[in-house]
Amino acid sequence: MTSDSLAPVTVIGLGAMGRALAGAFLDAGHPTTVWNRSAGKGEDLVARGAVLAATAEEAVRASGLTVVCVVDYDASQAILEPLAGALAGRVLTNLTSDSPERARAAAAWAGEHGIAYLDGAVMVPTPLVGGPEALILYAGERPAFEKYGTALKALAGQAAYLGEDHGLAAVYDLSMLDFFYGSMSGLVHAFALAREDKVAATALAPYLNSIVAILPSIAAGMATAIDTGDYDGEQANLGMMAASVDHLLHMSRERGLDTGHLEAIKAVADRAIAEGHGADDWASTIEVLGLKG
Amino acid sequence: MTSDSLAPVTVIGLGAMGRALAGAFLDAGHPTTVWNRSAGKGEDLVARGAVLAATAEEAVRASGLTVVCVVDYDASQAILEPLAGALAGRVLTNLTSDSPERARAAAAWAGEHGIAYLDGAVMVPTPLVGGPEALILYAGERPAFEKYGTALKALAGQAAYLGEDHGLAAVYDLSMLDFFYGSMSGLVHAFALAREDKVAATALAPYLNSIVAILPSIAAGMATAIDTGDYDGEQANLGMMAASVDHLLHMSRERGLDTGHLEAIKAVADRAIAEGHGADDWASTIEVLGLKG
Repeated sequence: MTSDSLAPVTVIGLGAMGRALAGAFLDAGHPTTVWNRSAGKGEDLVARGAVLAATAEEAVRASGLTVVCVVDYDASQAILEPLAGALAGRVLTNLTSDSPERARAAAAWAGEHGIAYLDGAVMVPTPLVGGPEALILYAGERPAFEKYGTALKALAGQAAYLGEDHGLAAVYDLSMLDFFYGSMSGLVHAFALAREDKVAATALAPYLNSIVAILPSIAAGMATAIDTGDYDGEQANLGMMAASVDHLLHMSRERGLDTGHLEAIKAVADRAIAEGHGADDWASTIEVLGLKG
Repeated sequence: MTSDSLAPVTVIGLGAMGRALAGAFLDAGHPTTVWNRSAGKGEDLVARGAVLAATAEEAVRASGLTVVCVVDYDASQAILEPLAGALAGRVLTNLTSDSPERARAAAAWAGEHGIAYLDGAVMVPTPLVGGPEALILYAGERPAFEKYGTALKALAGQAAYLGEDHGLAAVYDLSMLDFFYGSMSGLVHAFALAREDKVAATALAPYLNSIVAILPSIAAGMATAIDTGDYDGEQANLGMMAASVDHLLHMSRERGLDTGHLEAIKAVADRAIAEGHGADDWASTIEVLGLKG
């Protein structure tokens, strides 16, 4: 047995996600201690072999690795601050969702107390936790990530280490959500547009998948363009694309559909064109998204 | 030889797309006549075996199928109206991009003149025209689509017939673009958000693909919800998702990033919540996209 395999682990916070995390540890055979701020949770986990600690401090002292997953950082700091002494010399992994700033502030607090700190973001819904395809993002102290690599893989087959900046898991998480909500908004609006002309959503959906199929290569091309600043619009330029958005705006207005989202997209494209990006590709709109200048 | 294989075909409009279409016919072995309003185009196609007609009428009379692809419907109607007599009894397929209304109006004109009319939308860039994966959408008279099925498959391996309503190709095309631009806007904003925290776009892109990977099942689930009106938000409800968008708004504002797109998304979500959809899923936002009520 390596120092890492079947390491005792502790889970604090037994909401839906915390229970899924503890369950994944138990499934993998890790001795698992659990604790929840309000009583009455965790009996199902005890039935599966978990130890329900009487106090948070007892829970933390049971293991070298504590995973916290509560509603937000206000809640996690309220639980963790009294435990600084018990956590010193151990690894604390916070899977609570919050902002990069909060993660960095918590990391500074942990650093002051000699706690090795990882901030993470669970990128899958609870039923997928523990599976080979599940993705959890981690950022912070690399040695802590490596020491508990096996345990963290029990939570998600895809345990991705992003870097030393403790804010990175939140940055990636929020950036992914940013793309997600843009896509969701586009999806619903597309279904609405089709519905106005009596096209069923289930008839349209397979065709939308042909757009989904091209997104990975578009994202990859855009990423290279953004990182290099080379926005050559050979395939489709912003001027043409803005005209196409205008066409959508017109069609949506004629049908009495909300156009807020399309107007915002058009405004950004127009600003980029005004800044000289008309012959560049869509990625160049990133250069006008900043409001600071 | 069936009546359909190697049918003589005519292409009117020799811009980049028209040339690609004529080239695909030539590659498949169809006797191909071409014509362009302004002279000096099509010599390359003649070198590949096409016949360059002296007049549009001569071009139309050379084949049972004429494909038109010009800049917009104003241009196509200007070319086609004098040809009504020559086109009578033949099949006219218009691959010019425009609105559903324009397609329907052109179909009414064609019907008055005994012209079998198909409106189509080319869903791939010119280099992919003629390939097995290329998608062209068609709507209008089904017998015309079936009669020239082989010829239309020469233009795109995926020749999809959508229905009798001549506006449908444009409806599907525009709905797909609507989703596309929502996604593109989300992509660029995601890269911008990551860049504010020093994350390279090429580092983020692979993670965005994990969002892309879930979009087909989300689109399928949303489509069923929309068609049935059953918006049960078991997995993730609109209230939680609106809070998540609010989080993104907050983070974007703190970094001085444009939030127009996110504000529009939030406004729609908030309106849906106000209408009682807070516990429903995101698909329910379609019910507040109409402004007519």
